[in-house]
Amino acid sequence: MSESTTVSGMQTPASAALPTPGQRLARLRETVPLVHNITNYVAMNTMANVLLAMGASPAMIHAREEAAAFVPVAAALTINIGTLSREWLAAMVEAAVAASAAGRPWVLDPVAAGVSSFRLAAAQRLLSLRPTVLRGNASEIIALGMHGGATGRGVDAADGVAAAAAVARELAVTYGSVVAVTGPVDLLTDGVRCVRVANGHALMPQVTALGCALTGVVAAFLGSDPDPAADALATATAALACYGVAGERAGAVADGPGSFAVAFLDALHGLAPAEVDAEVRIEWVDC
Amino acid sequence: MSESTTVSGMQTPASAALPTPGQRLARLRETVPLVHNITNYVAMNTMANVLLAMGASPAMIHAREEAAAFVPVAAALTINIGTLSREWLAAMVEAAVAASAAGRPWVLDPVAAGVSSFRLAAAQRLLSLRPTVLRGNASEIIALGMHGGATGRGVDAADGVAAAAAVARELAVTYGSVVAVTGPVDLLTDGVRCVRVANGHALMPQVTALGCALTGVVAAFLGSDPDPAADALATATAALACYGVAGERAGAVADGPGSFAVAFLDALHGLAPAEVDAEVRIEWVDC
Amino acid sequence: MSESTTVSGMQTPASAALPTPGQRLARLRETVPLVHNITNYVAMNTMANVLLAMGASPAMIHAREEAAAFVPVAAALTINIGTLSREWLAAMVEAAVAASAAGRPWVLDPVAAGVSSFRLAAAQRLLSLRPTVLRGNASEIIALGMHGGATGRGVDAADGVAAAAAVARELAVTYGSVVAVTGPVDLLTDGVRCVRVANGHALMPQVTALGCALTGVVAAFLGSDPDPAADALATATAALACYGVAGERAGAVADGPGSFAVAFLDALHGLAPAEVDAEVRIEWVDC
Repeated sequence: MSESTTVSGMQTPASAALPTPGQRLARLRETVPLVHNITNYVAMNTMANVLLAMGASPAMIHAREEAAAFVPVAAALTINIGTLSREWLAAMVEAAVAASAAGRPWVLDPVAAGVSSFRLAAAQRLLSLRPTVLRGNASEIIALGMHGGATGRGVDAADGVAAAAAVARELAVTYGSVVAVTGPVDLLTDGVRCVRVANGHALMPQVTALGCALTGVVAAFLGSDPDPAADALATATAALACYGVAGERAGAVADGPGSFAVAFLDALHGLAPAEVDAEVRIEWVDC
Repeated sequence: MSESTTVSGMQTPASAALPTPGQRLARLRETVPLVHNITNYVAMNTMANVLLAMGASPAMIHAREEAAAFVPVAAALTINIGTLSREWLAAMVEAAVAASAAGRPWVLDPVAAGVSSFRLAAAQRLLSLRPTVLRGNASEIIALGMHGGATGRGVDAADGVAAAAAVARELAVTYGSVVAVTGPVDLLTDGVRCVRVANGHALMPQVTALGCALTGVVAAFLGSDPDPAADALATATAALACYGVAGERAGAVADGPGSFAVAFLDALHGLAPAEVDAEVRIEWVDC
Repeated sequence: MSESTTVSGMQTPASAALPTPGQRLARLRETVPLVHNITNYVAMNTMANVLLAMGASPAMIHAREEAAAFVPVAAALTINIGTLSREWLAAMVEAAVAASAAGRPWVLDPVAAGVSSFRLAAAQRLLSLRPTVLRGNASEIIALGMHGGATGRGVDAADGVAAAAAVARELAVTYGSVVAVTGPVDLLTDGVRCVRVANGHALMPQVTALGCALTGVVAAFLGSDPDPAADALATATAALACYGVAGERAGAVADGPGSFAVAFLDALHGLAPAEVDAEVRIEWVDC
């Protein structure tokens, strides 16, 4: 409530006519986008439940025999390298290529990109296929920047969102992707514009797979947009803000991470578009 | 409470001496059937918890090195193609063959059978091995019928249970299986008799894997039956009715899909046989 | 409260200066150990949430391309054969060898070791690599003993913890591992000393993967110990006691296994070290 008026609501410098986050949420629920996910074993169940609670329809299809062929059937694709293996990586690459060919938006989640050379090479390979949105935490984004011709700064377990901002902008320019660095305050950029989302709750990182599931929610918002490429930055921003508002509501009633996870699904399901617009804390900032 | 007397209770035209759903549930809890599941990654955890809450004992074993050999150890088998791959399909076929050889009942769940040729061929191959029960939603059953020499009607995203009824009967006759088409009102048939189950709650499809877990519950009821082949239609009907009653109880206290999932496991665990028999809404109908 | 003074608290015959379970929990929360898990599909999500709630940091990494290389990055390793396949087994062996080479403690969970020759051979192979702790139920421990040159007594579905005690001691001596046999009252031994932990709740085995997740918690306690090899018996005992205390707290408020699972995560998260020390029921016994 103490935020300035530039912080509340969805005010982009270029256009006041953009749909609000609440309006985008309403559209998601009307269109019920089918979201195709190639994601990790830990996150699959949570991601499916988050997408259902939000109003989207999840499909988990990873086999090479069908993954790429399924891409045009869905409205959007997510690729998450959390429990990566060589076989799955091949299907991920084929699916990403199919998404570009079919004009489907797709979101890359480079889980733990920095912890092994296998994983970093996989994330780099997928990033080179130019995802619509790249969503990761600060350490993951910085790890990608080190090997992507970007700033090359050191990776630190305590990497903050601010430390990743310069890398995020360079990756956005290099790959034509919107980059979303999530943390206590999220930072998103398309390389030219930057925006912060301050919604969320401290218990969210205490529940496994809520970050992975957010990647699915970004895809759902993109997949319900009539022109996902037009302003993926605004769309991803709306997704993160809605997610954070639901987190705040869950946090207000939770006694710990167990009850938080339950309340969070209920909150996503019950999120009213008008209330979302009153509660989002989005700030367009200088890059 | 407003249902006619033909709708309440378990009244089959042929025999009044069949156990009631509540009596079958009591028998399940006494026998604690071991249910062997080859199921998808999204559903595994939920399915195990549902089977435990119901009173059965779950085992998830899928590797070719042991899947078929384990079949005779368990009381029943489920095969679910939700997150299919070539390697798993081979183990599924071997396990289904082993179930027939050992006289073990098994249930096929043809998840999203219509979305790719790989998946449809897999579902058809497994169906040709004559599962005791085939359980799917209307779209899945219709997709199987199109390629199974059945009616060939078009697949529609809005396929209803009624639209799948004719296909279900033909599949039942062709493969000697009971076919259960689940939806707002379930339809089950053995090709000669048809029955509807009206229990359930609108939040059930909003929680991922509850359909997959129901397949496990059907197997648990079959596995606790002294002669599973004698009347698999009545057994599967009882399973669906008990599941639906638990759903109604959970729905009465839930605030959304998160709290529904929690309350549903509690309701399954607390389900009293006598109460089940008072609340089931089963109707034998003309085919 | 009716337990004798030898039952309450952490009193080992050899040393009164050992940290209490509550002090070990406090150290875990300070160090936030990174726990590397190669575990089964059913347990992954639950295990990650349990570790987060306890105060540790989970990583699920199983591919041969990176599993062994990641071992020295983490503070401890768990290997669980629940949904075993040939490919995963190779990575497990490589990771266990890497853990020994790097001096990292590791915990083996031989899920259902007795149900197939494939699984038993895998568990024996891993056990021969001398885990810091072996944690299983009575039937699993006895199955390992039969083929490990130990007592060779028969496996029984009703195997109790007491029946496994002699096998546990022999395995501990043979492999230099602490063996933890979990059940209504847990028994732990290093081959010389024996200890019982009486904390826990009857709903714990009604929630899938809570046993598997406990294996992760043992690893987290080991990983936060400055010298994990010094007294792994006392460390594992503390882990089981803390877990059981949280189970008792969850059981006091749960209506069934669904609400128990939620309350258990909240209880783990809220566990206060001083309260733990007041509630643990640990008894050192004659072997």
